[in-house]
Amino acid sequence: MQTVSIKDLYQRTDKYLTKRVRVNGWVRTVRVSKAFGFIELNDGSFFANLQVVFEESLGNFKEVAKLVTGSAITVEGELVESPGAKQPFELKAENIEIVGACAPDYPLQKKRHSFEFLRTIAHLRPRTNTFSAVFRVRSLAAYAIHKFFQERGFVYVHTPIITGSDAEGAGEMFRVTTLDFNQPPRNEAGRVDFTSDFFGRETNLTVSGQLEVETYCLAFSKVYTFGPTFRAENSNTPRHAAEFWMIEPEIAFADLKDNMNLAEAMMKYVIDYVLQNALEEMNFFNKFIDKSLLARLENVLKSDFGHVTYTEAIDILKNAQEKFEYPVEWGYDLQTEHERYLAEKHFQKPVFVTDYPKQIKAFYMRMNNDQKTVAAMDLLVPGVGEIIGGSQREERLDYLERRMAELGLNTRDYWWYLDIRKYGGTKHAGYGLGFERLIMYLTGMSNIRDVISFPRTPKNAEF
Amino acid sequence: MQTVSIKDLYQRTDKYLTKRVRVNGWVRTVRVSKAFGFIELNDGSFFANLQVVFEESLGNFKEVAKLVTGSAITVEGELVESPGAKQPFELKAENIEIVGACAPDYPLQKKRHSFEFLRTIAHLRPRTNTFSAVFRVRSLAAYAIHKFFQERGFVYVHTPIITGSDAEGAGEMFRVTTLDFNQPPRNEAGRVDFTSDFFGRETNLTVSGQLEVETYCLAFSKVYTFGPTFRAENSNTPRHAAEFWMIEPEIAFADLKDNMNLAEAMMKYVIDYVLQNALEEMNFFNKFIDKSLLARLENVLKSDFGHVTYTEAIDILKNAQEKFEYPVEWGYDLQTEHERYLAEKHFQKPVFVTDYPKQIKAFYMRMNNDQKTVAAMDLLVPGVGEIIGGSQREERLDYLERRMAELGLNTRDYWWYLDIRKYGGTKHAGYGLGFERLIMYLTGMSNIRDVISFPRTPKNAEF
Repeated sequence: MQTVSIKDLYQRTDKYLTKRVRVNGWVRTVRVSKAFGFIELNDGSFFANLQVVFEESLGNFKEVAKLVTGSAITVEGELVESPGAKQPFELKAENIEIVGACAPDYPLQKKRHSFEFLRTIAHLRPRTNTFSAVFRVRSLAAYAIHKFFQERGFVYVHTPIITGSDAEGAGEMFRVTTLDFNQPPRNEAGRVDFTSDFFGRETNLTVSGQLEVETYCLAFSKVYTFGPTFRAENSNTPRHAAEFWMIEPEIAFADLKDNMNLAEAMMKYVIDYVLQNALEEMNFFNKFIDKSLLARLENVLKSDFGHVTYTEAIDILKNAQEKFEYPVEWGYDLQTEHERYLAEKHFQKPVFVTDYPKQIKAFYMRMNNDQKTVAAMDLLVPGVGEIIGGSQREERLDYLERRMAELGLNTRDYWWYLDIRKYGGTKHAGYGLGFERLIMYLTGMSNIRDVISFPRTPKNAEF
Repeated sequence: MQTVSIKDLYQRTDKYLTKRVRVNGWVRTVRVSKAFGFIELNDGSFFANLQVVFEESLGNFKEVAKLVTGSAITVEGELVESPGAKQPFELKAENIEIVGACAPDYPLQKKRHSFEFLRTIAHLRPRTNTFSAVFRVRSLAAYAIHKFFQERGFVYVHTPIITGSDAEGAGEMFRVTTLDFNQPPRNEAGRVDFTSDFFGRETNLTVSGQLEVETYCLAFSKVYTFGPTFRAENSNTPRHAAEFWMIEPEIAFADLKDNMNLAEAMMKYVIDYVLQNALEEMNFFNKFIDKSLLARLENVLKSDFGHVTYTEAIDILKNAQEKFEYPVEWGYDLQTEHERYLAEKHFQKPVFVTDYPKQIKAFYMRMNNDQKTVAAMDLLVPGVGEIIGGSQREERLDYLERRMAELGLNTRDYWWYLDIRKYGGTKHAGYGLGFERLIMYLTGMSNIRDVISFPRTPKNAEF
């Protein structure tokens, strides 16, 4: 007898109807009448449950009738149509084996639990409808990202996690060390001697793989990273985590326009892939999490993304009939309220804001001819604000060195990054997409803690 | 005019022959006669170069003739057949733009460089034939892993990198901290007070995502991780790195046999995918790195993997006409020399060794009926030795708690791991595949530093 996933039963029903199959899964609910009963069974392969019908003739009818939520069972039986019922078919059990009992204090009883409570049982929450859907969508979105880039000939690069460099010239970092904290070795000046640390120097967790992946871009033309990054910021907000995954493509012989085209194509590809491959989950989110979700995503698919310069955006915001909390002034960074106004009210679709003042952007962004702005781009989307940040990189060695000097960066620490400009350094561009922000955008979930399996935030590294 | 990658020209030659196209890339070599010249151009999309022919009629003939290795150019011209030549076609240049000059001290001149030297310029080495091939194969193999699991309905899980737990109950770990090393806060006993650290506790870099992903396995039935893991071992060997990527699938309602079937199918899938999608690279490795490579991989594709218990393997090794450095005795772990003897000489194909003595395996492996061995499996492959290690997990709460007590593990630290046994905990199994070991196996490269973009090893975290 064939063992089949519940997803398979839903997607290839015709193949299995009237056939005998074996299905494994966990009991969501049991309802029993005198002579028969129903089990809602879920195996995690699909959003919907399988309805199992069992009758008194079953050898272990009494044990099965007493099954509690959370128990693991293996069912053998015939798949039959269930006309008129809400589900298209059901499994008529001939045999039910209890392969994993569930203790009566199981925290996931059939009732609504708050997301806050479910975070305290992060090891069990993927068994709920919401988190089962979130993490299936997360998996599919990750695959869609790989598929998109691989189909276009991009080379996937694993940039280092432990690093001696600081990609942004800013950003609070986590130290990585094997020194004994209680009695660290000290040098003559009494300072901790990091030359005896594991790597013979001070090392941190990466905040971005961009600088490293640029070196690969100038060998392969098209590359991307997809890996974890870290920020030791003490921000307890629904949008910040200390550990998150980031996608960073980088393209050579390409400028800001190519970069925006790539970002737009990628966003549409991932949305389309998830709608194609997780429609049940997306309908669930649209019904229970965010009623405007599907309309918003479908609008993205059919829109050409907007384009506006930072300078124009400032004008739009100044003329807006809207009271903002933060000041709108040329030279100030845009806040989430400004970004959302632009995407949601003014453009009513995703919009790229380009050419920001150099002082609010990173040292490696390419100087524009006005000498005041840089070839930066942020993609703002309705409902979230900024979701992608990128730029054309400064490929001119003299410009780059001058800018680094202005900012007090030590060019010796970046010798390899500068080398890339010396040796066949041509124009190139790239961007970073925070993967969790993307999942929040795709699902409507509003707290980053609810789209990460085991989130790391200030004072929290449980599990 | 269409911009085309060199890969596209090779793979869809008919489409482009006699057409005018634009190609970007970096100059590998230039040869000039009086009235014409040849450029070998590479854009990183493909192993082979494109031959560009240019003639005196070119506006900037003199500059082009003086181009040095490493320069970035954009060429426009007609793709024409080059009958009788070693390459099937060439690009007849109408226009060559120099878009990135190369300084004369470029370290990658046309000559053989040692791998040791190339490690010191890890930012430039992907521009060489060998490393260009290694990192394209690495990217394709990573994608093949995702494709394999996604096609089979597995859910990809990002398990945490920063962790408070220690998956193996052993393994030296890197500490992650934001405390000030020079003046850490101390408690009344004078010890460093980690309650004021970022996460409010001691945290480390993960050595494995297995324990966490098991909890997802018992929600989704089929899951896998693919992420970085860390070992702070001071081992300066060609096979050890402090930072490496690992793949860890986990399947529920499954035993050791299902686990072995999955591992065998995955290995064959990845090998087949790489041979299909990187044949030029694989031929290069077979010619210049390891002359037995292709024969070995093709043998894997057509073999049924062998199966032998640890106890039988000890007998085979004891009866072998072979002098081993390390002792062969029941209860001792197998060394690489033993593993290679089994795979290369005895079985002459990949072989699973199963059912190891419990004392040399981890606490979470399922106890066999003999109470002496556990349901462990290692996959040994010719040329490498162990490449996969896995087991059926102990799903019986009483067995697991007893084993943890024997080993002195504090069950309170593993409350969530034990919960999974209490609540619908059914049989499940999984394994870990070191991704770099796989790449070494696929390419024949013999040093792990040469399959990682920017390797991290003791005293080395450059770039």
